Amino acid sequence: MNQAQALQAVEQLMMATVESEVEVLRDASRHILAAGGKRMRPRVTLLAYEAVGGTDMDAVLPVAAAVELVHTATLVHDDINDHGLMRRGRQTINAIWGRTFALLTGDFLFTKVYTLMAPYGDLNIIFAEMTSQLVEGETLQAAAAKEGKLNRETYARIIAKKTASLFAGAAKLGATLGKGTPQQIEALYQYGFNLGLAFQIVDDILDLIADSQKLGKTAGIDLAQGKGLAVALANGGNGAQTAVAVVEAQEEDPGAALKRKLLQGNYIEEGWQQARQLAALAKLQLNTLPSSVARDELLRLADAAVEREY
Amino acid sequence: MNQAQALQAVEQLMMATVESEVEVLRDASRHILAAGGKRMRPRVTLLAYEAVGGTDMDAVLPVAAAVELVHTATLVHDDINDHGLMRRGRQTINAIWGRTFALLTGDFLFTKVYTLMAPYGDLNIIFAEMTSQLVEGETLQAAAAKEGKLNRETYARIIAKKTASLFAGAAKLGATLGKGTPQQIEALYQYGFNLGLAFQIVDDILDLIADSQKLGKTAGIDLAQGKGLAVALANGGNGAQTAVAVVEAQEEDPGAALKRKLLQGNYIEEGWQQARQLAALAKLQLNTLPSSVARDELLRLADAAVEREY
Repeated sequence: MNQAQALQAVEQLMMATVESEVEVLRDASRHILAAGGKRMRPRVTLLAYEAVGGTDMDAVLPVAAAVELVHTATLVHDDINDHGLMRRGRQTINAIWGRTFALLTGDFLFTKVYTLMAPYGDLNIIFAEMTSQLVEGETLQAAAAKEGKLNRETYARIIAKKTASLFAGAAKLGATLGKGTPQQIEALYQYGFNLGLAFQIVDDILDLIADSQKLGKTAGIDLAQGKGLAVALANGGNGAQTAVAVVEAQEEDPGAALKRKLLQGNYIEEGWQQARQLAALAKLQLNTLPSSVARDELLRLADAAVEREY
Repeated sequence: MNQAQALQAVEQLMMATVESEVEVLRDASRHILAAGGKRMRPRVTLLAYEAVGGTDMDAVLPVAAAVELVHTATLVHDDINDHGLMRRGRQTINAIWGRTFALLTGDFLFTKVYTLMAPYGDLNIIFAEMTSQLVEGETLQAAAAKEGKLNRETYARIIAKKTASLFAGAAKLGATLGKGTPQQIEALYQYGFNLGLAFQIVDDILDLIADSQKLGKTAGIDLAQGKGLAVALANGGNGAQTAVAVVEAQEEDPGAALKRKLLQGNYIEEGWQQARQLAALAKLQLNTLPSSVARDELLRLADAAVEREY
């Protein structure tokens, strides 16, 4: 089973897992799953498994599917909190089925993650820690947005928890299941962590500069929620300048004011640079692994994370 | 460790489990946990464990805590969907911290359930199935409320999934961990299932007749959401009569109109009768267990479920 076939199998497994006699849960779950996505996290799990010598792809598929489902669950809940209308080029679940069913669909996906992970014994400890961090990161972000203040340290904490912890966990799960050495598991964890940070910074930048159609989601929403603001602060914005942006953002359309400010500064280019450095750090971790097709793929994945336009 | 001490230990474990460096998650979680509750579900887990001969109470405490936390998570999300302002005599999390943080706190509690259950191997399969059913039941209920139609079969499906499955799972988890025989595990599962049905019917009746203060939550809300309506339908309401109630409910304040209709009929008394029959069925299941303090407690718990006034 090559990587493409494994990813295809993950898709099928996710679709099968969200089967339910309660139609709206099944339909809403399949709606967002069918929209696709980059599937970065399950890729990392599959590749980390292979990179340490794992060969039984059937054994790792449910773990990769669980990693993507927990990510999907948080996207569904994010779209409620952010009033997002578009996601992955489709209407969001809350836009079609309403808030109540979107909330329950997210919960349903969480329960299906349990179902997939149930047979995996100690891997559940890694999984639980990862998921808990993810929700903590989302909450820090919401708190920062609400308070209207966000400094560089808080931004770093947010993206470490909400994105990097999931990438790191995705790698660690695959490497652990593949019976990697402790050093290999740690290296892949660090790879995932740095890749996750890079990925999120690029995401925030793209949200800032892209138009809605290209991104397939309502651009500027992340920004309005205080996410894009982070790009500035993380990448050299000085306090005073940012304070102005925040105040103006509160006075008029927050997204528009902030966007203008950020686009004027040097923030975007500095953000790219930081993301590229992090991707390079991620790649360095892979030096400790033996050469393999999977390792080459992981290297390419790190490049792709910072070279993408959407 | 007696039952009271074990329950106290479950409380402490839940409080410790929701520790987080993200203060709002910790504070909101502790806010609802500190409000108490009947703790029916963890009681069932602890007692089922002991009833089949389990003696290591420390081993069952995390499972009992996980069962209560998953229940608590759904309460937090329910209060968002129902716009509930009071719960267990306290303001709801959404009333204090707002919808976004309430949603994330519910998600956080779900992740902490993983943490508690991670070391329990195959018990996670039971747990996942139970939790999935729970969310399906909540969804069926929301769908019935939205469509404004609910028949006796749908009500039965809803309470079977949203309440009975959790009670049944709580019992099965304890009995399985306590190394009960297959017959004992099945008997306790059936005990929990019938107890859960009885408990929910009584809950719906109390919601219908109680005033807000006594219940400690906004009375009539469940009714307005189409939950109390179910009492009528499950207990002898004829289709035409109910249709009238539903139509009137849609024309004026749904809660008030429906409440008036239901209080006029014979529904309340029939509901009590049905609940008592189910509690008796639950108790019958316990005949197959050897005499023990735990078995006596389970018998009392079934009585208490249908004799309570709040």
